[in-house]
Amino acid sequence: MYTKNFSKPLDLRAININDSFWKKFLLIAREHVIPYQWEALNDRIEGAEPSYCMRNFKIAAGMMEGEFGGCVFQDSDFGKWIEAVGYALMWHPDVALQKIADEAIDIVCAAQQPDGYLNTYYIINGLEKRWTNLRDNHELYCAGHLLEGAIAYYIATGKDKLLNTIKKYIDYIAEVFGTDTNLLPGYPGHEIIEMALVKLYNLTDDIKYLNLAKYFIDQRGQSPLYFEAEGELYNNNFHWKDSYFKYQYYQAGLPVREQTSAEGHAVRAAYLYSGMADVARETNDQSLLQACETLWLSIVNKQMYITGAIGSSAYGEAFTYDYDLPNDTIYAETCAAIGLVFFAKRMLEISPISQYADVMEKALYNGIISGMSLDGEKFFYVNPLEVVPEASEKDHLRRHVKVERQKWFGCACCPPNVARLLTSLASYCYTQKEDTLFMHLYVGGNIQLNLGDQDVCLGVRTHYPWDEEVSIGLTLKEETNFTIAIRIPAWCNQYMISVNGCPAAYTLTNGYAYLERKWHDKDEITIVFEMPVRINSAHPNVRENIGKVAITRGPIVYCLEEADNGKGLHRVCLGSAPDFTCQFEEDLLGGVVTITSSGQYLSDENWDASSLYHADITPIMQNKKLKWIPYYTWANRTPGEMLVWVRR
Amino acid sequence: MYTKNFSKPLDLRAININDSFWKKFLLIAREHVIPYQWEALNDRIEGAEPSYCMRNFKIAAGMMEGEFGGCVFQDSDFGKWIEAVGYALMWHPDVALQKIADEAIDIVCAAQQPDGYLNTYYIINGLEKRWTNLRDNHELYCAGHLLEGAIAYYIATGKDKLLNTIKKYIDYIAEVFGTDTNLLPGYPGHEIIEMALVKLYNLTDDIKYLNLAKYFIDQRGQSPLYFEAEGELYNNNFHWKDSYFKYQYYQAGLPVREQTSAEGHAVRAAYLYSGMADVARETNDQSLLQACETLWLSIVNKQMYITGAIGSSAYGEAFTYDYDLPNDTIYAETCAAIGLVFFAKRMLEISPISQYADVMEKALYNGIISGMSLDGEKFFYVNPLEVVPEASEKDHLRRHVKVERQKWFGCACCPPNVARLLTSLASYCYTQKEDTLFMHLYVGGNIQLNLGDQDVCLGVRTHYPWDEEVSIGLTLKEETNFTIAIRIPAWCNQYMISVNGCPAAYTLTNGYAYLERKWHDKDEITIVFEMPVRINSAHPNVRENIGKVAITRGPIVYCLEEADNGKGLHRVCLGSAPDFTCQFEEDLLGGVVTITSSGQYLSDENWDASSLYHADITPIMQNKKLKWIPYYTWANRTPGEMLVWVRR
Repeated sequence: MYTKNFSKPLDLRAININDSFWKKFLLIAREHVIPYQWEALNDRIEGAEPSYCMRNFKIAAGMMEGEFGGCVFQDSDFGKWIEAVGYALMWHPDVALQKIADEAIDIVCAAQQPDGYLNTYYIINGLEKRWTNLRDNHELYCAGHLLEGAIAYYIATGKDKLLNTIKKYIDYIAEVFGTDTNLLPGYPGHEIIEMALVKLYNLTDDIKYLNLAKYFIDQRGQSPLYFEAEGELYNNNFHWKDSYFKYQYYQAGLPVREQTSAEGHAVRAAYLYSGMADVARETNDQSLLQACETLWLSIVNKQMYITGAIGSSAYGEAFTYDYDLPNDTIYAETCAAIGLVFFAKRMLEISPISQYADVMEKALYNGIISGMSLDGEKFFYVNPLEVVPEASEKDHLRRHVKVERQKWFGCACCPPNVARLLTSLASYCYTQKEDTLFMHLYVGGNIQLNLGDQDVCLGVRTHYPWDEEVSIGLTLKEETNFTIAIRIPAWCNQYMISVNGCPAAYTLTNGYAYLERKWHDKDEITIVFEMPVRINSAHPNVRENIGKVAITRGPIVYCLEEADNGKGLHRVCLGSAPDFTCQFEEDLLGGVVTITSSGQYLSDENWDASSLYHADITPIMQNKKLKWIPYYTWANRTPGEMLVWVRR
Repeated sequence: MYTKNFSKPLDLRAININDSFWKKFLLIAREHVIPYQWEALNDRIEGAEPSYCMRNFKIAAGMMEGEFGGCVFQDSDFGKWIEAVGYALMWHPDVALQKIADEAIDIVCAAQQPDGYLNTYYIINGLEKRWTNLRDNHELYCAGHLLEGAIAYYIATGKDKLLNTIKKYIDYIAEVFGTDTNLLPGYPGHEIIEMALVKLYNLTDDIKYLNLAKYFIDQRGQSPLYFEAEGELYNNNFHWKDSYFKYQYYQAGLPVREQTSAEGHAVRAAYLYSGMADVARETNDQSLLQACETLWLSIVNKQMYITGAIGSSAYGEAFTYDYDLPNDTIYAETCAAIGLVFFAKRMLEISPISQYADVMEKALYNGIISGMSLDGEKFFYVNPLEVVPEASEKDHLRRHVKVERQKWFGCACCPPNVARLLTSLASYCYTQKEDTLFMHLYVGGNIQLNLGDQDVCLGVRTHYPWDEEVSIGLTLKEETNFTIAIRIPAWCNQYMISVNGCPAAYTLTNGYAYLERKWHDKDEITIVFEMPVRINSAHPNVRENIGKVAITRGPIVYCLEEADNGKGLHRVCLGSAPDFTCQFEEDLLGGVVTITSSGQYLSDENWDASSLYHADITPIMQNKKLKWIPYYTWANRTPGEMLVWVRR
């Protein structure tokens, strides 16, 4: 269980999010994405590639005849879906949804083999082939997702059928893997089971599950490389043989404690690091925690986009090298930003240092929700910071950069990942450590918790991130001592914290303002975070952003869109002394603060269209009014150019 | 034969190049590349992939047993080699080389089939499969190269064995292809035979060869598409099915007269357009000439690098779209720039307009010779305008961008193409139309020709492109009237032409100064082309060069190299009022004019290395002296960064 050395997230059931910004996303996830995904899992979406997910389970269960369909990791789609269902049920009981879920669970559980094994790809294609390609065939990944889903559904409903089924599968896995004689010294090619196992350990208090997670992490990348031996033994084709990263694509080229830079497939990397943080926390493993901190800094100081996105290259959906952050050929998978939030959340639970929450906030308000259309019906895998429609059409290097969100994908990793994140958003907002409540994110709603041995209710009211003010009303029976630790965002230079109208006393530690005092019923905390428009530069080593700036306000990154600013956005300059005007536009893009600014535009009036190069020409800059919209809202109107980093 | 409406190149045998700049390249081509290539064709280069070229001919000739080796187009390597040998023999008799060539020709000719067919891939792998994949298997391409080689060798030596053999092959081809019943309505997937056929027509005056060239051009892209039908008939895999260009990869998606933008594989495109110009010239086909002019402008006004390189994308080694000129993910194949010179040469012969020669000069002095190391031993296929070694190593999009020239390639298209261009360089310098001699390029040496019914000798002395002055001494028996048309380069705003020390009278037409007068023995023309350093901008539509400039002096494009300027070249700015100093450095890079200038460098002294983004920071620009070297000389010292387009 969580030890007292760490702060732990609050129970999702104790938080009722009622936030002017997030509520609509949560409703979309619950009311749109979850039902839509269920249709997708059952191949009932017209015009979309079939998922085959539930069909595979039925075939594996002997309930129908057929061949395995879809990607090798299709089982994970059910895992993600049932996980999102679980979270949604925690804050919104729904009998009909539970009934659908229970019926689905019956199908999934029916596919389990007598020994506990449960992976439809190998059940259908031949059990004798199981565990012959851990590197690429996602068996342990699917097990991890099923386990995460089973736990969420159990916590939400108390129903343990799925949990018991998956636990049996995990118990079987624990008998297969390890360094003892007769065990397979392997580990997953795509990580996630590590996180899931620690959740199971936290739920059951059974050390076996923590030990299995620890084994998968400690064994990873040990010499001789398991993936290399496995590949040779089973003659598995190695797709990354000629790549730069080779086994580091799987973060498996070195023992994890020797890995000092984030490398390879970005989602896998973030999931591994999250699992490492989980194990470090539970086992108090300082060398593992040190590795997490090193890898964290490798990401956030060297390889992270200003939107919180990660993964610079479509090739391998991967990290590349320090300061390589192309805006146009970018990958920046929605799932990778979600993975970074998982990692940040875990680091924050270990060490309440605001930079972890800053990154979490950055990714949540920018690089993750950009992955979903405002109506929740279309999704981006790839979240570029610069888009030119003609390039996406005609330049092979940018064909993965879509100009419009897509309906659904055969490989549907991002949409259900967004759903499970949004439905569990409340667990990212707060953590508690003894009598200290940490407020990491500013999301309106009500929270019930026990502080200072008392039931306390907090009512958070705010129009954050558009508005600078956050109010927190306290309800408690008797006056009592406890601490509320308020994150001061890194983007905020000026802020004011008051209690009942008077400036509050606090100590500032690691970016948190600790308000330690005797609290009374009806106490009201008011925080004002000043939100001027900020002009951001990237480190001079970032080639792609040299001479360019990005506009932010509060946690929100802004962009220019063709719909507001016309074509040729690369010709825009912000100028040296821009003036900014912010305005809340209720009817635009679901209600957003837009920014207008002065700016300039490189004219071609001194150019002959028939000359491509011209010597000794003086650039003619014309004044141009610029309109900036929040990055996450781009591509919700007429498709066109988009740009985040603009010339200064 | 060439009609009087066109200017024709001088006989290579009448020109003795003795130029301070080019002589060394020509000697390298003759003394290094030709012998080295012969070793390569015979698989005798240690550490290089075997070529299999001569071995294939021996196997096809029944002189040895074995399987076909190398690429499907390996026969063309012999064609290019013998062509370069032919050109070299025209200006430097070499009995030993001729003996080697004759023995090689014996082998090649021995492989010919009774019906005339001569392609080792199909002779070895089964003649019944010939002409089943014109689209991808390069049969007609190989035939074209063999023909070009045979013609050059015949002109050089008078020996007709190879010419007769290949002519028999061509006669056979003429019986296979056409739109008549029982003929194949096909055309080459990789063009070149069109140019070769017109050369054969010019040599033999046999209209059949011109007609075949015309057929290949007119039939190309006609509906129904031959390549589509062929692919279906023989079940040939279509690599470009999902690409943007599809059949335009081969310039075969539309009839050539309907093609308005240069598309697809850049080398193929340039070869096709060259062949089109040849046929337009010989047949006086105005619609075809119009198509050539349109495609020419599509390249030079929209898709050409400042170095004369073409082909923006490694994917398909191809053109992409207007103004898409990335400097770092560029392809810019050496062969494509050579193809552009072929095209320019032909357009210039039709219309003596200086822009054709300007492009020819630009490509020759920059994007082509950049493909060869100064010692002639290593070669680039890809000629980038921006290089970062770490990116070439770790970014998949730039893995084709090499930091160092390579020794030789299995697919050895570029080195022998450079060799055949350099050995025939003199044919690009001058053309004659009746009594007008056009001087397109300024290359020192002696020229014998007949002008005004007299034998005239011109002695050109110059240190161009480093020096501004070109002197031309005339030797003739009797005073006589003729015209010397001197190209005024587009880069030159100030020039002075004098004869015997007095300003000369001339008329300026289409960029040529026509000196029409009565000439006397020992007349001396002196031209001074002022060569200030120029700061060039690209059209504002070129996203990659926005806010950047490139430095040129005369025809030479300059670059910054890490060896002179340190790392982080992306941080360099030229500043608004740079001063330039030019200096001839005899011992540097074979003797070049280098430029030093003032400049600036974005410092990171106000950056914490641990922050990737920073708000409201003022950039600190430090003064930095910059040293520029000619672009073509880059990567001849310690490998490192290189940059052409620098922030203003």
